[in-house]
Amino acid sequence: MTQQEADRRTRRSSGGRAARRLARESATQELQAYITRHIPPIDILHDEAAELIEANADIVLSEIGIEFRDDQEVLTLLQGAGCDVDGSRVRFPKGLARQLAATAPRQFTQHARNPLRSVEIGGDNTVFAPVYGPPFVRGLDGERRYAEIKDFTDMVKLVYMLPGLHHSGGTLCEPVDLPVTKRHLEMIYAHMVYSDKPFMGSVTASSRAEDTVAMARILFGDAFVEQNCVLISLINANSPMTWDDTMLGALKVYARAGQACIISPFILAGAMSPVSVAGSLTQILAEAMSGIALTQILNPGVPVIFGSFASSISMQTGAPTFGTPEPAKVLYGCAKLARRLGVPFRSGGSLTAAKSVDAQAAYESAHTILPTVMGGVNFALHSAGWLEGGLVSDFAKLVLDADQLTMMNSLVAGIDVSENGMALDALRQVGPGQHFLGSEHTQANFETAFWRSSMADYTTYEQWSSEGAQEAEARARNKAKQMLEAYQAPDIDPSIDAALRAFIEHRKQVLPDSDY
Amino acid sequence: MTQQEADRRTRRSSGGRAARRLARESATQELQAYITRHIPPIDILHDEAAELIEANADIVLSEIGIEFRDDQEVLTLLQGAGCDVDGSRVRFPKGLARQLAATAPRQFTQHARNPLRSVEIGGDNTVFAPVYGPPFVRGLDGERRYAEIKDFTDMVKLVYMLPGLHHSGGTLCEPVDLPVTKRHLEMIYAHMVYSDKPFMGSVTASSRAEDTVAMARILFGDAFVEQNCVLISLINANSPMTWDDTMLGALKVYARAGQACIISPFILAGAMSPVSVAGSLTQILAEAMSGIALTQILNPGVPVIFGSFASSISMQTGAPTFGTPEPAKVLYGCAKLARRLGVPFRSGGSLTAAKSVDAQAAYESAHTILPTVMGGVNFALHSAGWLEGGLVSDFAKLVLDADQLTMMNSLVAGIDVSENGMALDALRQVGPGQHFLGSEHTQANFETAFWRSSMADYTTYEQWSSEGAQEAEARARNKAKQMLEAYQAPDIDPSIDAALRAFIEHRKQVLPDSDY
Repeated sequence: MTQQEADRRTRRSSGGRAARRLARESATQELQAYITRHIPPIDILHDEAAELIEANADIVLSEIGIEFRDDQEVLTLLQGAGCDVDGSRVRFPKGLARQLAATAPRQFTQHARNPLRSVEIGGDNTVFAPVYGPPFVRGLDGERRYAEIKDFTDMVKLVYMLPGLHHSGGTLCEPVDLPVTKRHLEMIYAHMVYSDKPFMGSVTASSRAEDTVAMARILFGDAFVEQNCVLISLINANSPMTWDDTMLGALKVYARAGQACIISPFILAGAMSPVSVAGSLTQILAEAMSGIALTQILNPGVPVIFGSFASSISMQTGAPTFGTPEPAKVLYGCAKLARRLGVPFRSGGSLTAAKSVDAQAAYESAHTILPTVMGGVNFALHSAGWLEGGLVSDFAKLVLDADQLTMMNSLVAGIDVSENGMALDALRQVGPGQHFLGSEHTQANFETAFWRSSMADYTTYEQWSSEGAQEAEARARNKAKQMLEAYQAPDIDPSIDAALRAFIEHRKQVLPDSDY
Repeated sequence: MTQQEADRRTRRSSGGRAARRLARESATQELQAYITRHIPPIDILHDEAAELIEANADIVLSEIGIEFRDDQEVLTLLQGAGCDVDGSRVRFPKGLARQLAATAPRQFTQHARNPLRSVEIGGDNTVFAPVYGPPFVRGLDGERRYAEIKDFTDMVKLVYMLPGLHHSGGTLCEPVDLPVTKRHLEMIYAHMVYSDKPFMGSVTASSRAEDTVAMARILFGDAFVEQNCVLISLINANSPMTWDDTMLGALKVYARAGQACIISPFILAGAMSPVSVAGSLTQILAEAMSGIALTQILNPGVPVIFGSFASSISMQTGAPTFGTPEPAKVLYGCAKLARRLGVPFRSGGSLTAAKSVDAQAAYESAHTILPTVMGGVNFALHSAGWLEGGLVSDFAKLVLDADQLTMMNSLVAGIDVSENGMALDALRQVGPGQHFLGSEHTQANFETAFWRSSMADYTTYEQWSSEGAQEAEARARNKAKQMLEAYQAPDIDPSIDAALRAFIEHRKQVLPDSDY
């Protein structure tokens, strides 16, 4: 290892400087926009195995092919780029998809309206985004019900206030009290106005993607949106090996607008992919490369993310299972395949099949989020708040998961072997049989030495009992209530707010109340 | 990487053979004595940093020195081996401790009375042992109280039945209803008779270590104990840099009897060691090497384990904290230092400060056990059942943690890139837009493809609710009751049982009821 590599792998600097920097980092924790790893990612897929999977993915692309359904424009574009198109089946000659993907940037910036919140996607960086998609919530009093726009807005506010989350996310929950044709307008508005963190665009119809881009132009200005990435949007494959016209429609809008898509095979292994890890990796790579290639055909150089959502299923009942070893292995393998392809990688989160925020929920979430962080995921959707296999957004779990996320920066920082970190003088000064609590070194470093949870209870059993014996879920639900009471919106230019409202009201008049 | 290394890192074999082997492994899961990793351990301490820490540990050993208290025999032995002895302060000339440690084996077998349960300690292997030491239990009905011998025996029985645990452990809880002078006899007896997994020896007095060895001779036979390791015992340092006469007394008995000790600095960083990770690593390495050296002076070649128990503390209250990133980094660093020293490594577990088996308990436990497994720990004490910072042994958590442990074998197995694992034929056969549930490949592999928790609930919300909406803790407490009702003791030769009882009754007559 070179000195440069060694420096990258640890915080190596002089004692005083390191201590001061650590103190600064702690003081500005709330403004830390994303985390950066100084340790290598877990790598359990060796190079020869990766080559084998890449070769097989090329066989899938060239022999089996990928379905691009109900979108003639896309088929024509793919044919023009050298693909063999047969009906809706598209075969990529060997090497073509990888060659097309080569124009995608290895790393890019997604801009937030508050520049301090802008995030770097790719490289050694990890960005945590909250839960995406559930139709239900468990609310502030633990009640389980369909989600409403009030819940959505409350979640945007909480995510804004939670330092562990770097990103406002997208569909924090589905506000089913609003018509499906119009709800995207209020969701995007909530992200734009109640938070200043970066956010995700609507993908449920190409017209809704266009509305999202139009609103982004109001918020950021036309010229800025022309030149910069301000939206990341989730484009799920209809696995196995199929893209549908809704997703292709949204993909086209965003890619042409210079905005980023997450090209995400959505896999319950054994159902949407082979039951084996390597087989799933092969299929995921083929699907992701086909979508990534399309973004680059549409707009060479447009930012794009290699995505993967993969869970195992109970082969007895077909129910999805989370926090199990096989999806962790898919994650480690996929992260490596994405690094080799040279594009940022999305996967992981805090996933669970549990019905309440109990020990099962936490075990399964931890066994997803730790692989996410240690495997080198760049964009982690569902990092907080996910419950019941994604059916429920839970306010308590949002707070608890987000608290866990605040530890990850320390975990990936590596080991400080500066003079201050080595602490040889402290060892000399204290010596055998004494304690370090009052030592100079401890006094100089204690404020920043240890990550401390803001949700864990560290009191004695007696104190905990006398204070009501509250378990983590109850503490977190109280915390969510207190936070929402204390919420203060970030400033926004009133003329921009008014322009956004005017756009929304206009669109609401134009749009039907139903798709049917 | 060579082909041999590649083979070691993945399950690489022909499709049919791999599938058959997987099926066999699943069928014999209950008899899997320990797990073996086929992936490299997490390594976040780079080589230059490790060298720096080793050099500083040598400075601690040679300049500051280690206290060996109230044991003149030990001081004389250390002096004879080349140490500089000044009162009870012992300084090891640079390089001496490492040189003395060189006779310790890199890997050894701890024999169980059932040979199928014997475990390999060291190398790529990990052995999971349960919680050790708590004075309290949370019993089968969730009640919190002082532990009794009935609880101890029940825990031995559960550990015997739980496939995730490879080892019966030691002080599963402190049976405070028995006099401290005699309780070790009933504890060792319970491990020997109610289980056939390997177990740990008593360390609270040298006479109790002698009783343990005497009982092992009855169980295994004199000749076998002379030639083999049948006991592992926990020797904690009185950190910083101090050994007391109780631990030295037990260490001498076991080392001379050819039995293994775990030489374990016990660190709450910031109190018993510097507040920094690298400073703690330096001290832990110095302390461990001093104890390991002593075992090799007493009996060159005797098996010994480099131990580390390290937690952070809340600098506000002094309370120990668990599942935090700094102890994980100490673990990763220590594991590497132990590999470089060439001795097996003990650390980790399923640690938590939580007062109930809630989400906090599970988050913190997962954030300890996953580093334990991925960092390459060889012997993991406290792998199941630990609650309240080690004050409580919890029956429900024992069952839940042990369930989590059953996933680790799959996690460290790596990715199968055999023809069967690659599943290219399944991809060809199924194709775009179809599903894999009924495919030949899925049918051939589904029984072994995915790890499945036996404690997690994967049902729908509706079903879960209709069945009482039980959270994980309640499910686990019921499971513990059911298991104890179904318990059947492993066979033991009645004459050996009678000889053990005779020894115990004799010792009980001889021993005082109190130390005072």
